Amino acid sequence: MKSRIAVAGLVGALGCAVWSGQADAQIAKNAAAKSPWGPADEIGTLNMMTDASRLDVLKQVASGKVYDLGVELFVGMPTCCAPFGDPTFQIFMTHTPAQDPSKELLSYSGDGVSMYTHTGTHIDTLNHFGLQGKIWNQVSAKDALGVRGWTKSGADKYPPIIARGVLIDVAKAKNVQHLPTSYAITVADLQDALKKQGTTLRPGDIVLTRTGVMTLWPDPDKYRLADQPGLSLEAAQWLVEGQKAMVLGADNFGVESFPSKDPANFVPVHSYLQAEQGVSLLEALWLEDLSKDQVYEFLFIASPLKMRGATASPLRPFAIPI
Amino acid sequence: MKSRIAVAGLVGALGCAVWSGQADAQIAKNAAAKSPWGPADEIGTLNMMTDASRLDVLKQVASGKVYDLGVELFVGMPTCCAPFGDPTFQIFMTHTPAQDPSKELLSYSGDGVSMYTHTGTHIDTLNHFGLQGKIWNQVSAKDALGVRGWTKSGADKYPPIIARGVLIDVAKAKNVQHLPTSYAITVADLQDALKKQGTTLRPGDIVLTRTGVMTLWPDPDKYRLADQPGLSLEAAQWLVEGQKAMVLGADNFGVESFPSKDPANFVPVHSYLQAEQGVSLLEALWLEDLSKDQVYEFLFIASPLKMRGATASPLRPFAIPI
Amino acid sequence: MKSRIAVAGLVGALGCAVWSGQADAQIAKNAAAKSPWGPADEIGTLNMMTDASRLDVLKQVASGKVYDLGVELFVGMPTCCAPFGDPTFQIFMTHTPAQDPSKELLSYSGDGVSMYTHTGTHIDTLNHFGLQGKIWNQVSAKDALGVRGWTKSGADKYPPIIARGVLIDVAKAKNVQHLPTSYAITVADLQDALKKQGTTLRPGDIVLTRTGVMTLWPDPDKYRLADQPGLSLEAAQWLVEGQKAMVLGADNFGVESFPSKDPANFVPVHSYLQAEQGVSLLEALWLEDLSKDQVYEFLFIASPLKMRGATASPLRPFAIPI
Amino acid sequence: MKSRIAVAGLVGALGCAVWSGQADAQIAKNAAAKSPWGPADEIGTLNMMTDASRLDVLKQVASGKVYDLGVELFVGMPTCCAPFGDPTFQIFMTHTPAQDPSKELLSYSGDGVSMYTHTGTHIDTLNHFGLQGKIWNQVSAKDALGVRGWTKSGADKYPPIIARGVLIDVAKAKNVQHLPTSYAITVADLQDALKKQGTTLRPGDIVLTRTGVMTLWPDPDKYRLADQPGLSLEAAQWLVEGQKAMVLGADNFGVESFPSKDPANFVPVHSYLQAEQGVSLLEALWLEDLSKDQVYEFLFIASPLKMRGATASPLRPFAIPI
Repeated sequence: MKSRIAVAGLVGALGCAVWSGQADAQIAKNAAAKSPWGPADEIGTLNMMTDASRLDVLKQVASGKVYDLGVELFVGMPTCCAPFGDPTFQIFMTHTPAQDPSKELLSYSGDGVSMYTHTGTHIDTLNHFGLQGKIWNQVSAKDALGVRGWTKSGADKYPPIIARGVLIDVAKAKNVQHLPTSYAITVADLQDALKKQGTTLRPGDIVLTRTGVMTLWPDPDKYRLADQPGLSLEAAQWLVEGQKAMVLGADNFGVESFPSKDPANFVPVHSYLQAEQGVSLLEALWLEDLSKDQVYEFLFIASPLKMRGATASPLRPFAIPI
Repeated sequence: MKSRIAVAGLVGALGCAVWSGQADAQIAKNAAAKSPWGPADEIGTLNMMTDASRLDVLKQVASGKVYDLGVELFVGMPTCCAPFGDPTFQIFMTHTPAQDPSKELLSYSGDGVSMYTHTGTHIDTLNHFGLQGKIWNQVSAKDALGVRGWTKSGADKYPPIIARGVLIDVAKAKNVQHLPTSYAITVADLQDALKKQGTTLRPGDIVLTRTGVMTLWPDPDKYRLADQPGLSLEAAQWLVEGQKAMVLGADNFGVESFPSKDPANFVPVHSYLQAEQGVSLLEALWLEDLSKDQVYEFLFIASPLKMRGATASPLRPFAIPI
Repeated sequence: MKSRIAVAGLVGALGCAVWSGQADAQIAKNAAAKSPWGPADEIGTLNMMTDASRLDVLKQVASGKVYDLGVELFVGMPTCCAPFGDPTFQIFMTHTPAQDPSKELLSYSGDGVSMYTHTGTHIDTLNHFGLQGKIWNQVSAKDALGVRGWTKSGADKYPPIIARGVLIDVAKAKNVQHLPTSYAITVADLQDALKKQGTTLRPGDIVLTRTGVMTLWPDPDKYRLADQPGLSLEAAQWLVEGQKAMVLGADNFGVESFPSKDPANFVPVHSYLQAEQGVSLLEALWLEDLSKDQVYEFLFIASPLKMRGATASPLRPFAIPI
Repeated sequence: MKSRIAVAGLVGALGCAVWSGQADAQIAKNAAAKSPWGPADEIGTLNMMTDASRLDVLKQVASGKVYDLGVELFVGMPTCCAPFGDPTFQIFMTHTPAQDPSKELLSYSGDGVSMYTHTGTHIDTLNHFGLQGKIWNQVSAKDALGVRGWTKSGADKYPPIIARGVLIDVAKAKNVQHLPTSYAITVADLQDALKKQGTTLRPGDIVLTRTGVMTLWPDPDKYRLADQPGLSLEAAQWLVEGQKAMVLGADNFGVESFPSKDPANFVPVHSYLQAEQGVSLLEALWLEDLSKDQVYEFLFIASPLKMRGATASPLRPFAIPI
């Protein structure tokens, strides 16, 4: 492992020149890893973020123009996970004004919501997928899973995220509206797109991959998890072990390509990233405006809701060009 | 109105020297106002935010230290509004790993949530309280209220908020853990605290008032809406009409003092701010760390979830000193 | 109208001998009717039920054998109305025993549910579909619809239902597993099935029509509202105006055939029955066991949950042969 | 055990003449029992119900008068368990008619609900409370508890309940509106009330005890679990082991007296009945009308919703005098 990271660091410095992909079976160890940040760590690579790293990227801001990376949440919106039994997004009124205004001075409106935590644009936390009964940092369900959620690695433990963000616009590099269904993005695809963009990755980056499927949003029959294009395991490995990305994100529902080719694991990239590498995922990002304006490097900001124990938090990230 | 604002601007420049409060009845017109930003406006004073204003405050950042202003969301947490019939915060598991890890490779966890939109730290949008059947910009329920929410002024219309924030630490200025129950903060209280802090307000500020009640969090019997201390109507007017604050926030549930003294209006400050002034509110903010470190001026960032039509959005703001 | 009912009564007495169907446009008046049971009536034809009618059928019970007419409710079950944005059935644990029993004496389990009220086997109340802004008995939404439901004709106003029930097994009469998709059952179909069964309808009956689609349960792709077979408007009219049925039920999601042929009304039988005739509907009934055992006449019992204002109540009816 | 039941049978036959109560510690074994109905049993004493027992009671019906034993469900209703973090009752509209009727032909209303399964009048199933990791019939959580509920003894396994019901009106026998807070009903109290009523218990009865607290309904501050009067453990034992009652019910939230005197077990009667005796509980019954009319013996009917795995089902029982 050490030599691989050393090479990867070099590769990063050289602009992603070479990388020899590995077979899936070799990449994934299929066991939750110990955190290099110590036994108390619950957030994995987000530990790469420091006061210095935040100040560094904040100081690079070149304008006050904000790119909104979050989608709207509404009744009938596309859902990753209703097919798995998870609740759909619901909003409902609990207070409404009288229909006859003469009846009241105050016009009082209130509403409740219910949803799967993985709804709309969201971050997956490290307790979402473990391996063999353990999540990141070898925390076992037996020790840390209660009826209302995990005591470890939930969204409540997550810091606001302030870091350099990079867009890798694979769909644009390939000159397509969106990648074909189930297409698995390769390392070469990423390298090619980065080269065309003239973008260099740096350790600690939030790396956002654009497949173009958000052009199908919000048609729930077309924007769907089942056969979406996304990262291959090799590409994820290259970004994380090779380029030392801090967080991976995408404009699709699950970052990775679906369906999985591994009959024993329907989300091999999730389990590799979350349980083995301590990498959180950003999903269902709106990257269309960045793509249109060819903004590839930016201040990335997102702030998870501290829902105790949650395996995800809906959030609404934004980008400011640097 | 014009002359009052002009005076207020002067007052702001001079450090809040003089302000002649008005009787409540005079302050509140009890009718929704037209927006000075035009008939299409749905976000009121958030229009004060521009690329230039954002860049200006981003450029002032002096460190990468982050102050988290959001509270945790958990089952049993204090709730403003369960007494009004609104749902409590619920999180529940929809997927959990097998208890016997030998049964599975993947350890899959997922969860759903349900809540009142005004849960934990949140922003009130301008459709929360109207007057006489109309919300901000004279939009009527008849025209814009559907079964799943308003088509106007919902959280989906809100931008990410990036602005200069100011803490007015009234509890510290009065040297108390927290203000007494139902205490109504006066203009003089605000001026006194600002003077002690050496802080000057500027147009477009996010003004956060600290009552100290967050020291009672998360005891649901003590941290409660019913008799919380908060802003008086005069104080709210001074901040908004006088100092041109963009958004008002506080560490209590409803910004204003409860119960209302007005038998016809249980939230006179809400309706004044939201329906008459177009001012959004930030509630249940965690201001303890800012207070402890005496951080009174900062970059304030918050990003509402774009829940279509919602009268509020839970969010997790943070501050970075400037 | 009077003459038609008189004829219908005669027809009923004669064993369904003649009935001249009417064109749809003639059948439906497309306006909510006044109740013959007076201005305070909220339950329509359920007023036909009396102490005497109940005692009469109870006394006819010939065995203690119970036929369960309710389906199971579970995550992933077929849903009529998720395509209309309504919530799916959810059950989730709020208390679970410790995984290590040595940790506790008590093993405490608890759970919450959320669902559309029209979930599984249920009764539609008379406020579900109105016409031109008014429900049964000409009650207007303006007068009786609040944020949490109707003050009129909700499930809270419904009595337990104890009456003679009759199964009309149309699928069996036609010797098919289930009727074809979208098939609209005719008056002749009903008459033919009744004749084959040797069953006579009586005023006040709960009339349950079997289409056979419950043989597709619980496959959510096959047991679905969109194109289900069910009653035609003429058949509904014949049962209600002709035979004086008290309640209509079926083994499909919506009693009537879908899709509607009327572009202006996607549920013409619902609106005719609920708003014009005051007839409540029983949906998604499990009629397989009655069919198998050729039980056509029975004591029918169902007891709606008194959910205030609700447009439906899930319930679990049962039958005992008479 | 055998001798105790034999005596109890005798006692029952003799009209409850003698019973020597036992100390709590002796009564409760604090371990889940094996079912006398075999290893597949999930419903305990409900196995006492047979075609013959049902027909027997149905044949005794003397009138068609129905006593409704269910309470209304509404926003703000009393809740047993919100203090334990469980969700409150919520109903919310998902479809509403246009406010302007001229806009539409159909006036479409629909609604969703969410609630704790133990809401309003309900039945507790045998998986609600176990002991030392096992529920009734020694089923372990490890084997039968999944993320969405138990595979054993859930409400989906419950039959409709049709049996002889008996009211024991303890409040009336003591000539009080309701028993004092936390009062623990003794065996002598039950015997005294039965004697005054002239009622004899029989094996297989549904025994409903009236404490009178339903006279406090629906004031959520007064009708509450925390200090309600109810059965003592001895009284429960006498009814079940002595009189062979099939199901116990009451007009309070938890049948038993609260708070428990046992610091190690906050619901000793629940765990004794559910885990040791296989007895299901009926809670929050409306017994006021039966009491007023002095109806002490009746046909009791209730039909649980078959919610898969649920620890309870809301239901709406009713009684018809025999």
